[in-house]
Amino acid sequence: MDQRSDPSVLPAELPVTDRTRHRRLREQGSLERADLEAILDAGFVCHLGVVVDGHPMVVPTVYGRDDTQLFLHGSVAGRSLAADPEASVCVTVTHVDGLILARSVFEHGVNYRSAMIHGVPRKVTDPEEKLRGLRLLTEHVTPGQWDYARRPSRKELAATTLLALSLAEASVKISAGPPGDGEGPDAERGIWAGNLPLVSRWGTPVPDPLLPAGTAPPPHIERRGGARHAGAPR
Amino acid sequence: MDQRSDPSVLPAELPVTDRTRHRRLREQGSLERADLEAILDAGFVCHLGVVVDGHPMVVPTVYGRDDTQLFLHGSVAGRSLAADPEASVCVTVTHVDGLILARSVFEHGVNYRSAMIHGVPRKVTDPEEKLRGLRLLTEHVTPGQWDYARRPSRKELAATTLLALSLAEASVKISAGPPGDGEGPDAERGIWAGNLPLVSRWGTPVPDPLLPAGTAPPPHIERRGGARHAGAPR
Repeated sequence: MDQRSDPSVLPAELPVTDRTRHRRLREQGSLERADLEAILDAGFVCHLGVVVDGHPMVVPTVYGRDDTQLFLHGSVAGRSLAADPEASVCVTVTHVDGLILARSVFEHGVNYRSAMIHGVPRKVTDPEEKLRGLRLLTEHVTPGQWDYARRPSRKELAATTLLALSLAEASVKISAGPPGDGEGPDAERGIWAGNLPLVSRWGTPVPDPLLPAGTAPPPHIERRGGARHAGAPR
Repeated sequence: MDQRSDPSVLPAELPVTDRTRHRRLREQGSLERADLEAILDAGFVCHLGVVVDGHPMVVPTVYGRDDTQLFLHGSVAGRSLAADPEASVCVTVTHVDGLILARSVFEHGVNYRSAMIHGVPRKVTDPEEKLRGLRLLTEHVTPGQWDYARRPSRKELAATTLLALSLAEASVKISAGPPGDGEGPDAERGIWAGNLPLVSRWGTPVPDPLLPAGTAPPPHIERRGGARHAGAPR
């Protein structure tokens, strides 16, 4: 089946374009769409890069996704889009898994998983699609809240800038494992080398002080407290 | 004293420019240089935004700093600089402190601390300055490693792209505290609301499998294991 004939399916191999070609540390690049999806699903904050008046702006924002596109909040991107509806953006999601501590400073580095998505975003205006995109975004950030909290009113929906960005053009970089100088001449130096992992966890839910005493968090929030964030360790 | 006469001192109040003016959520903006420095010091990975062939690219990279400038690794920025030495970049550092879980989906959000720095970076070429910049960067990411690991050789130094970016033009956004709908009509709904904190910690050091048995991590690494990352909670 020609996957291009079905817009709801993107190829399992990520395309190589001028923007996604891995130029260095080639071994860290991945062309697996499954890796892209795993990185997106392990986080909820991306860094959105847009060009405003010729200058790059990088703003953190939340996102959600379906199989073919990212949904994101974006007032800065909204400004860039207003100025040029064909302006492309770059969305980067990064998980820092720890430090690579080598025998030499030069071989030091960071273990991370990072995805970059390039494209021209589309402002979602259809109320039905906007509601669906906001549901996907909300459920991506905090599963269970869409059915628990009050959903957006028509007015709130209108006040929300939601962008959709195709997941077609993306690249993935993954760095994992021990330092690379364990077999070189520096190995003789008796210097300790290894990794220092960095782990994110959800803490205990903190109730709003204005909440009536005795209001318990719902199970989907309670359960999340203490859980590891950013996916399983690789 | 006119601080502009001394390039080693930047004003304690951040300047308001077209790029740093806070356009929305005004209450979250901070003009304190001390807040900027605290955010920079609580992290070590930034998202560097550059414009390459008219398109924004956002790449994660490590950084260090002195009182007036950021030092960062940047091969992508190097390409952008090669094409246009006057091209500006945007560096964003974000710490995600947790989720704001409100009574309504519309009031949901993220508690975070974020700094954006704008400017035209300078490629550091003087070997002495490069060594100093790399020391600041290394010690920022892993205090103690500069004196412990083997320092860069002349050849390694030449193979490293180091950029310096002034901290003069920057903006800070901080979002903290409970949801904002505790006194509105949604407060009557009996919905639990509050924050779900996200906490980063350093794990236990993992020795390189190639290390001779019994090689112990140095105290500065051992001590860091288990410590909280991203600064003290606010």
